[in-house]
Amino acid sequence: MNSTSPVTLTPLGGLGEIGMNCMTFASKDHMIVVDCGLMFPDDYMLGIDVVIPRFDHIIANKEKLRGIVLTHAHEDHIGALPWLLPYVDAPVYGSTFTLALVENKLREHDLDRFVELREVKANDRVEMGDMAVNFFPVCHSIIQGFGLGIETPAGRIVHTGDFKIDTNPLHGNFTDIDSFREFSREGALLMLSDSTNVEREGHSPNEREIMSALSEIFKDARGRIIITLFSSHLQRMQEVFDLAWQTGRKVAVSGRSIMSNIETARRLGYLSIAEGVYVDMDKLVDLPDEECVLLVTGSQGEPLSALTRIASGEHRQLKIKRGDLVILSSRFIPGNVRAITRVINNLYRLGAEVLYERIASIHASGHAFKEELRLMLETVRPKFFVPVHGEYRHLVKHSRLAQTCGVATERCLTLENGQPVTFQPDGTVRFEDNAPVDKIYVDGKGVGDVGATVIKERQLLGGEGLVIVVMVVDGENWEILVGPNVESKGFVFEQHYSHLLDDAKCIVLDIFENTPPGDETKLKERIRSSLRRFFRKILERDPVVVPLVVVI
Amino acid sequence: MNSTSPVTLTPLGGLGEIGMNCMTFASKDHMIVVDCGLMFPDDYMLGIDVVIPRFDHIIANKEKLRGIVLTHAHEDHIGALPWLLPYVDAPVYGSTFTLALVENKLREHDLDRFVELREVKANDRVEMGDMAVNFFPVCHSIIQGFGLGIETPAGRIVHTGDFKIDTNPLHGNFTDIDSFREFSREGALLMLSDSTNVEREGHSPNEREIMSALSEIFKDARGRIIITLFSSHLQRMQEVFDLAWQTGRKVAVSGRSIMSNIETARRLGYLSIAEGVYVDMDKLVDLPDEECVLLVTGSQGEPLSALTRIASGEHRQLKIKRGDLVILSSRFIPGNVRAITRVINNLYRLGAEVLYERIASIHASGHAFKEELRLMLETVRPKFFVPVHGEYRHLVKHSRLAQTCGVATERCLTLENGQPVTFQPDGTVRFEDNAPVDKIYVDGKGVGDVGATVIKERQLLGGEGLVIVVMVVDGENWEILVGPNVESKGFVFEQHYSHLLDDAKCIVLDIFENTPPGDETKLKERIRSSLRRFFRKILERDPVVVPLVVVI
Repeated sequence: MNSTSPVTLTPLGGLGEIGMNCMTFASKDHMIVVDCGLMFPDDYMLGIDVVIPRFDHIIANKEKLRGIVLTHAHEDHIGALPWLLPYVDAPVYGSTFTLALVENKLREHDLDRFVELREVKANDRVEMGDMAVNFFPVCHSIIQGFGLGIETPAGRIVHTGDFKIDTNPLHGNFTDIDSFREFSREGALLMLSDSTNVEREGHSPNEREIMSALSEIFKDARGRIIITLFSSHLQRMQEVFDLAWQTGRKVAVSGRSIMSNIETARRLGYLSIAEGVYVDMDKLVDLPDEECVLLVTGSQGEPLSALTRIASGEHRQLKIKRGDLVILSSRFIPGNVRAITRVINNLYRLGAEVLYERIASIHASGHAFKEELRLMLETVRPKFFVPVHGEYRHLVKHSRLAQTCGVATERCLTLENGQPVTFQPDGTVRFEDNAPVDKIYVDGKGVGDVGATVIKERQLLGGEGLVIVVMVVDGENWEILVGPNVESKGFVFEQHYSHLLDDAKCIVLDIFENTPPGDETKLKERIRSSLRRFFRKILERDPVVVPLVVVI
Repeated sequence: MNSTSPVTLTPLGGLGEIGMNCMTFASKDHMIVVDCGLMFPDDYMLGIDVVIPRFDHIIANKEKLRGIVLTHAHEDHIGALPWLLPYVDAPVYGSTFTLALVENKLREHDLDRFVELREVKANDRVEMGDMAVNFFPVCHSIIQGFGLGIETPAGRIVHTGDFKIDTNPLHGNFTDIDSFREFSREGALLMLSDSTNVEREGHSPNEREIMSALSEIFKDARGRIIITLFSSHLQRMQEVFDLAWQTGRKVAVSGRSIMSNIETARRLGYLSIAEGVYVDMDKLVDLPDEECVLLVTGSQGEPLSALTRIASGEHRQLKIKRGDLVILSSRFIPGNVRAITRVINNLYRLGAEVLYERIASIHASGHAFKEELRLMLETVRPKFFVPVHGEYRHLVKHSRLAQTCGVATERCLTLENGQPVTFQPDGTVRFEDNAPVDKIYVDGKGVGDVGATVIKERQLLGGEGLVIVVMVVDGENWEILVGPNVESKGFVFEQHYSHLLDDAKCIVLDIFENTPPGDETKLKERIRSSLRRFFRKILERDPVVVPLVVVI
């Protein structure tokens, strides 16, 4: 297929970061969006619930928009939909399972009635304006993921989605390499591929190895088994139910997200549970220990999750006892390591044995390792390559890998968010002016109203606390009628420091005497700077000082 | 040696956590303290500088105190001295290098003139009351560390300190297994041993392997080398200077802590640098790239460190350019992973190549792996075993390892901080009533005044921000004279939300109308609860609301 007119790729999120994947492909007349994910906040983003991409570029082109295509149902690919869909009008495409999770999410945001969800099956081809999208099954840590083959006026584009290559798959969860090859046979203009694990040599462990390791553990266990995993990892859950059945155990579930995903998967027929294996928690606790499996949320040490409550002895129905075996069949996400190890240590304190990735092979990444990435590159043999889904160093290394697989150096484009690139009919590329991109903070119902300034204030308040000075001043005679009163929050334990706050009052009185009458602005400024200096000197602390001078 | 009278071990820190190592050994008449370390704060401890143990138990027994013994100079072993030494009067024992770093620290706290530091040499024996301490050289990630052989009236006690066993050591940094064996020949009552790496199978890599890997990197590098490491790792620094000399490079240093430690080590003769290899930064930048090595602080992505400034383009003397090689010869401490990877990604953005532990063998832990721990257990063959220096799960696993090495199950004591245990003349142990232990927060000059309540307030302020309501009320007629005024900090971007704050004012007015005149307490309580309810409903946020009602 020859190129007839230009197509522009605009990455809006997910390049240079793990999270909030979102990009657009636009011909002259039409546009499609691939994925619409969120990112979980970094530690310094105090009080922020989630982070989403800036959608201005999509909204500005909404007349051209013909579809929003979802590769799979992880939050970093679908999580920002509730903040885009109210502003655009286009169908959302994805697998049955992906759309089922999307629907749950939209319902929570009261958006489900306004959005058209269109299910696609493996190897479907869907036309969207002058483009068409082919959906290829890929193996990942969630079921029913797709890689994409996008036919555009500029040529064929392959987007791998998040994938690994499992050559000996369980339950049919495989990456359809043949379809990728077939789609690219006449030449792929461009490939975009998952860079997450480019630093890991060789091949990722496959799910059969994990199941086999878990199988040994289930067979050897004499007491109760409590197992946690990513709440969207339906395949792993299938393995747990299968192993429970094989070893004569029953499974109960504790934790909302796992329970809800199991319900959805069962309803759609993507989870097959032998008769009588899935029981209520209330029933499980009456069974002998060696017949119990409890599947729980909390693989990341989340404060309110079932596992964290179990570890702190606060779970209503389950108390840990000696002989219990807890399995964390999941990865430790870096920002969560301290929380997770706190949970593990507490479980040991209560007498449980705990198995986790570091000491047992009970988790496999859903992202391809280096040799799998190489295989994908050699299958598609694209003319251009854009690494996606990775921190900047991953993108650099994935570009280098592509070069070793025959992609010309100057055609390996290590892009960042907001850098649009146009693939032109003459076979060249043009870098366009930047599109607006940003990390938009969502805090409660507020979207984008909490920005750098507010976060900075929160850091100051959180780091050092607050001192408020109140005084009422007679404006006519410039005399203090009430105060100064000094109150603090998060600053010092006041009972220990009443003398300090008394000294602060004296300082304020002194400032009042020495400030020109009537100059309220100067008075407040001096109170603020003098008290900060005073606290820095006495305590080496620098609280936020709020002087409130009421003039009547 | 037979036991003649009881000795009590009291762990005050370091058991069930990595950090703030501190314990006491007490006979009837005398006491010694082993180590006095700090811990760095966890993320949730907002605004806290360092965390130290509660010293009440030591201070209550200060008449008995005969010495404070330091195993080595890491902060988790010496860092809390400035907060103990003002309250006790006993000499501090340690190696020349350890005490040199202690002296620097005490000078910063204006304490150096009041403390008696007594240097000990390898295999010295020092009597402290009715006990005596033998100092055995151990290999660790800092030079001049000691393990201890403590002769007590109850029997011989071995404390390994932090150690690894390097059977082919560089620069004479070895663990003197023979001395441990000799000391324990007639029977060791008790061993306490480093549990940090009990989960890691086999033997830790040795420093010679690291040097050899670094050597290959130095030989292959064509451009500048920028290398960071733990600022107290003098042996690794020696390797860097040696390799620079061998490859015709010069070394300059950027970062206060490394510079200060190098000065100390050179003064004492523990760092041997070939003539002309160590140069000033100003001189280095004029050299050809292939002759430059820059040794910098910042292995943990610390915000103000040299490497972080280099990565963000803010270092005054050094700008990264293509061809630069950055080496992180250090471990990623879990809480710092995001900061470190941010630095690495920024370095790639600027065109540098970066090597780190995950992708190259350029760091070795200073703590023994499982087989080294086993060797120590089999060397000392203690009657009792107490695992130290580890999170709770490490202690449990180290106790299990001791059991496989012949220590009776009931004599492997997995203790926690504050649980004293007495070794009695009849060969039994008695668990004593708990000693007071705590994590004491140091915030600026305040020690312990910031506790759970203040931290909770900081979390609330930091997480959701603050709303202050001020009004002046005529107490006689119960009329509002001024206000209500509403101010916020770290809550919302006020320009977007003036209507919201206006609505809040109306709510306050309404409350005022409907509250019994004169009841200031009820008025404030109603303002607080109503505004919180209002903000939760409108914004799903829950700021700290401070109502200030001034009655005149």
